[in-house]
Amino acid sequence: MHVSLLAIPGIPMVKPGDDLGALIQGSAMAAEMRFLDDDILVVAQKIVSKAENRLVCLDQVVPSTRARELAEVTGKDARLIQVILDESNEVLKTRKGLIVVEQRLGFICANAGVDRSNIQQSAGEVVALLPEDADASARRLRARIAELTGRRIAVIVNDSHGRAFREGTVGIALGVAGLHALQDRRGEADLFGFRLQNTEVGFADEVAAAASMVMGQAAEAAPAVIVRGLSYTPAEGSALELARAKEKDMFR
Amino acid sequence: MHVSLLAIPGIPMVKPGDDLGALIQGSAMAAEMRFLDDDILVVAQKIVSKAENRLVCLDQVVPSTRARELAEVTGKDARLIQVILDESNEVLKTRKGLIVVEQRLGFICANAGVDRSNIQQSAGEVVALLPEDADASARRLRARIAELTGRRIAVIVNDSHGRAFREGTVGIALGVAGLHALQDRRGEADLFGFRLQNTEVGFADEVAAAASMVMGQAAEAAPAVIVRGLSYTPAEGSALELARAKEKDMFR
Repeated sequence: MHVSLLAIPGIPMVKPGDDLGALIQGSAMAAEMRFLDDDILVVAQKIVSKAENRLVCLDQVVPSTRARELAEVTGKDARLIQVILDESNEVLKTRKGLIVVEQRLGFICANAGVDRSNIQQSAGEVVALLPEDADASARRLRARIAELTGRRIAVIVNDSHGRAFREGTVGIALGVAGLHALQDRRGEADLFGFRLQNTEVGFADEVAAAASMVMGQAAEAAPAVIVRGLSYTPAEGSALELARAKEKDMFR
Repeated sequence: MHVSLLAIPGIPMVKPGDDLGALIQGSAMAAEMRFLDDDILVVAQKIVSKAENRLVCLDQVVPSTRARELAEVTGKDARLIQVILDESNEVLKTRKGLIVVEQRLGFICANAGVDRSNIQQSAGEVVALLPEDADASARRLRARIAELTGRRIAVIVNDSHGRAFREGTVGIALGVAGLHALQDRRGEADLFGFRLQNTEVGFADEVAAAASMVMGQAAEAAPAVIVRGLSYTPAEGSALELARAKEKDMFR
């Protein structure tokens, strides 16, 4: 079995309002790459957020009392904290340099995914929020690629997140369209006929991590990667399959 | 940029004492695959544990009082709990069906990585433990492949672990030889010259997840995958770079 991870080169800087599907397909064509049916296109959250104009200039933000308090604890800009609070359902942990929240979409992450790297700065500091609905972003991109190429692909919007217990960020799936994010292997037999009892695989997270590994290495910025050769059952899918319900989680 | 994930087909059932390097190299040759310098070989923990005879027959285990108490709480076999305790530095959480520990190597995981799937069963139930020292296992395998092929590769021993906050298991690096498990990108500039401040990448975990995604899909069992085309700086490396120190972790 041979799986290919193909970074699409030459994607231009993305601006609010850009047609991301057309930009990606245009760059793929220019590099003589063609989408095939069942490809999985993994796109970095940052360019999705830019195209969707999920940018906030901190100059426009007035921090609340709570934001100022948390700014004190974390040593972060109170306006940034306000943006993070606006993007969060719940604050889980704070300490110097760190705020971990349940982000509006339901994922646990630092800073609610709000980040200023790879964002063109203007007079005031500009930060990017996660997409409003990353599954919907993935669905739109999937439909657009189908429209432009006639190919039926799946799309994952990925981001790099920190984790409990382990150092280093890894790519995770934030939005999914076209496949089951979680693969249920319970009941399948192992090599000796033993029924697997607990195996649900975070498939979309593994694909997101694989693509992230390539994105992080491309000589120029490569915010889109084609994963080719994996088999999966086409399905609507949602990254929320990967978000553990609060009452099921022992670590919050 | 093109990265290939190549499952090595036809690896025979591994038995205690087997020369894993020779088995993998033999299967690769038979499939007309050749190792190249800078390949990363990812090997499933289960076959490493089998070759190293990290197998325990539960019939041989006498559970302690504590093991019997935790068996009550979790609903698991008290002998299995005893094996898990013997493999653990600390028990973090228990509840019906689940025990989460700091495994002897320093990683947080369920059941201390002790598992019975894909293990040939005898009269009494047999379970596999994690390798005694998974970095050392990776180093030995790396040296053996160099000896057999003259190629300088890196090796990752991977396993599927559950996580806090997210559903589904993903491949993680349990043992590493030949590369830095954690890549420090702090101080590098982003697309607009902004210095990245918090970016340490769990590189070996991303590679492990990518390989896991392929291992889980191969038509026959494919417990070894070659990752080809990634660039990395050769280094001794250790998976322990990825284990967050207890006092630094907010979730334990």
